[in-house]
Parts: sequence; structure tokens; C-alpha cells
Amino acid sequence: MFVYERAVQFEEVDAAGIVFFARFLNYCHEALDRFFGAIPGGYVGLITERRIGFPAVHVEADWRTPLRYGDAMRIEVTVPRVGTSSCTFRYRFLRASDGELAATIEHVVVSIAIDTMTKVPLPDDCRALLASHAPDA
Amino acid sequence: MFVYERAVQFEEVDAAGIVFFARFLNYCHEALDRFFGAIPGGYVGLITERRIGFPAVHVEADWRTPLRYGDAMRIEVTVPRVGTSSCTFRYRFLRASDGELAATIEHVVVSIAIDTMTKVPLPDDCRALLASHAPDA
Amino acid sequence: MFVYERAVQFEEVDAAGIVFFARFLNYCHEALDRFFGAIPGGYVGLITERRIGFPAVHVEADWRTPLRYGDAMRIEVTVPRVGTSSCTFRYRFLRASDGELAATIEHVVVSIAIDTMTKVPLPDDCRALLASHAPDA
Amino acid sequence: MFVYERAVQFEEVDAAGIVFFARFLNYCHEALDRFFGAIPGGYVGLITERRIGFPAVHVEADWRTPLRYGDAMRIEVTVPRVGTSSCTFRYRFLRASDGELAATIEHVVVSIAIDTMTKVPLPDDCRALLASHAPDA
Repeated sequence: MFVYERAVQFEEVDAAGIVFFARFLNYCHEALDRFFGAIPGGYVGLITERRIGFPAVHVEADWRTPLRYGDAMRIEVTVPRVGTSSCTFRYRFLRASDGELAATIEHVVVSIAIDTMTKVPLPDDCRALLASHAPDA
Repeated sequence: MFVYERAVQFEEVDAAGIVFFARFLNYCHEALDRFFGAIPGGYVGLITERRIGFPAVHVEADWRTPLRYGDAMRIEVTVPRVGTSSCTFRYRFLRASDGELAATIEHVVVSIAIDTMTKVPLPDDCRALLASHAPDA
Repeated sequence: MFVYERAVQFEEVDAAGIVFFARFLNYCHEALDRFFGAIPGGYVGLITERRIGFPAVHVEADWRTPLRYGDAMRIEVTVPRVGTSSCTFRYRFLRASDGELAATIEHVVVSIAIDTMTKVPLPDDCRALLASHAPDA
Repeated sequence: MFVYERAVQFEEVDAAGIVFFARFLNYCHEALDRFFGAIPGGYVGLITERRIGFPAVHVEADWRTPLRYGDAMRIEVTVPRVGTSSCTFRYRFLRASDGELAATIEHVVVSIAIDTMTKVPLPDDCRALLASHAPDA
């Protein structure tokens, strides 16, 4: 399991006073970026040098408890499925203060060559990293 | 069916050159805001005067075709389900130039009193509006 | 004078309940995009086909009155200065309900070739459009 | 001098491939949030408990060198002026890889009671923190 922690920022709430729902996908991507920090060059290297991208093809999100400004969150990332050229990330968002579950998100991405936008197999180093984060690992 | 059209904005793409996936939830909410324009006071009135909010409890999104800067989108909104204090919005994102399906999103919200964050029945005027947008209406 | 009107959106406020200051630059750019709608292909055409960009080199902003969710704004755009390869946009943000001045922003951009990031003269059609929006025009 | 470092994120660029200019004000505020981490309760405590806010009244920004995805930035924060109920933050944005100056921003805020939106003197602990970050300190 990979864990990424961050606080709700001042401008991430909406006019109802809670974190705007779209922000959770930003948080997912931020966690995913940090997740790939374990391979040389990281996520940036994948995008800018190796020109491999991971666009989302499917997302399923469930919200339980709203987060507010002042809350910090603990995002637990696992990878329940690794395919040939796609994989599924699972994110559990916990409110840091009390461990209350705020949201669960499943995020399916495909591996593509950015310059042609065509599907490519997951690179070996990515695959190894992903495989090592199976939920029961 | 309610239709909302808008162009991809300059700052809505990511470093892979396509609309960042989280933005689609912003687009959903923008369309939903316009959808409620049909009731007196609109979405703003619901939030600021009637203090009724519609936080997301579930989202399911599928992406088919990336959108880029220069694309415009046509968002078709229907309401496949209306419950006592929740409903489901369905958004189909079409690329305006050729009608290509870019994404489909289902978005379940609950009706709450913002000040107590407790569930309340959907107001009658909202319910009537929602019901009139069933997919086969 | 070019006028662009839009409402404050649900997710554009911060945890103090007012429009987050950075958003005003987003609004400026949105107005600027609409401003260039008067030339064939618009701002999108400049960026994606003609590959001309207008990065900011200087901004000076003054805020007077906070805007809130529920407010609409009227953005008045003029162009007090047109140089060889740069120009200055001036934006006055008025609260639509009562005409109260919310902010004034001056925004200096340079005209560049996006692919080389080097300065180029303002294209003739842009220059003509800009010149026609002098503050006293 | 207070220093805050962060990388450009994947979704912070625009369709010209550089960090969107409005983002720099987000970065300023992020740095400012961390700056106030030195007082008990931090910026969050100021906003949510003490109900003191610091809305911007003036910003002056100069951009020199565009930042791109893959760049990290070093933000140097100083406080050139501390008044009774306002102060000025100065941010220097340096590209981390080579120290190249990307932008300089001056940001004047006033101290207000959030619930009444009226000016209040800078709290003593804030004043002391601010004063200790004069540019020549």
C-alpha cells in the first residue's frame, strides 16, 4: 500500500463549505504522481521523456463523509488489477484526524504513447511497481 | 433532455495535451447549475437562500475520446432516477464538431440541508424539474 | 470597450467564502479569449493554428469589494496600450447587481511564437482589434 | 526568508504548454499558508478558529521565464512591509534546476475579521512572524 497525505487547501472548498467533488480526482492524480516517484524519473519522466501517459478510461467514486478546510486526508493507494496495457488504482480517502472514511475511488487507466494516443503495453518498471501494490500485498 | 454547450478552455488541458480528467466533473457541475436555471432563483438560490445542497455520493465515469483545446462539447443531461432525497444525473459529453462521444458520467447526489448536512426530501419544484428530464421524456 | 459577463461559480470561492483572488486572473483570461472572438478563428485559432501565444509578463491587480457565490460580474475590457509585440489589457470587474467595482486589473502580454517561445510582432488583425479598444474609443 | 519548494503539477499547464499565469497566485497562497505554519494552529487556525482572513488588495507580478511540467520551483518569501492591519509579501519564484528567476510577485493583504469583513489589526503573533521576515533579516 502506498500512502499519500495532504491537507485540504483554502481554495478547494465550494460554496457549500465542503471540498468540491471534482477535487477528489485531482487528489487521486496527485497521489498517483507520488506513487510513480518510486521509478527512476518518476511520473514526470514518463510523461516528458518516455512519452507514456495514463489517461483515465473509467472512474467509480463513492463519497461518505465531506471534508472541510482544516481537514487533512490520508490517501491509501493500492492496485487491485494490472493488465497488459491498463490497470486499476484504488484510493481510500481517510480523514486524518479520526480515520473516518471520506471516499473510495477506483480509477482505471490505459497506458498510451502520448504522441500517437495509441495503446501500448505497460512498461516493465511500471508493471513491477503496480504489481507490488496489490491490495493484499 | 437538457443540453449545455461550452468550449474547452485554454487552462483545462494537462501536460499530455488533453482535457484533464477531473475537469469533467467540473463540467458536470456546471451543466447541473444551468439545469437548475429552470427553477426560480436557480441553483444559486437553492444554495444561498434555501440552503439546500446536492453533494455527490456516487460517480461513475467512462471516457472514450480525449477532448483537446479547440474542441467544443455538447453535454446532454438526463435524469434516469429520482428518489425521495436523491437522484441520478446522466451526462453524455459529445465533441461538438462531429458528435463523437467523449465521455458518459452518472452522478448520484443527495439532497441535504447545508446547515446541518442532513438528508432532506427533494424540494417539489426540483423534483418536478428532475422528473421531466427522464431519459425517455 | 468589450464586455464579458459571467456568474461566480459554485467552486470558485475559498474557505473565507469569497472568490479566491487567483480566480480573477482566470476571469481575465476568459474575457481575453472572448475578446479575440472577433477575429477569424478566435483565440483558439491563434494558439492551435497560427501558434501565436500571449503570455503575461506583468499584472497589476487591485481588489475593492469581494465577490461571493451568487454574484454575477460584468468585466469591461479595454486596451490602453498597443506596442510592437506587446499590449496592455485593462479589466474592470463590476458586480452586476449594483455596479460596485470589485477589482481592476492591468495585464501586459507579449506576442510570441509558441513553438520557439520567441517574441514576434502582433499580427495585423490582432493589432487592429486591440487598437479599436483603446479606453477612449 | 521563508522558502517553499514544490513541483509543477501535471494539470497546471495550459494549451501553450507552460504554467498558466493564474496558477502563480495559487502558488503564492500555498506558500503563504506554509509561511503561517510557524504560528500555533497555522493558517487553518487563523481562518477557521480565530476567523481572521487576509484577502488580497493588491498584486503586482512580473514573469521572466516560463515554467513547464517537469520543473520544480523554489519560492522565496519575504515581508518588505508590515503595517497596522496590512502587510506586503514578496515572492521570488526560481526554477529549482538552475536558479533561473521565473517570476516576482508582490502581494498586499489586509487583516480582516471574516465574519464581518471589516479590517482588524494584525494579531501580535502574526505581526512578530511577519516582522522576522523582512527582506534584509
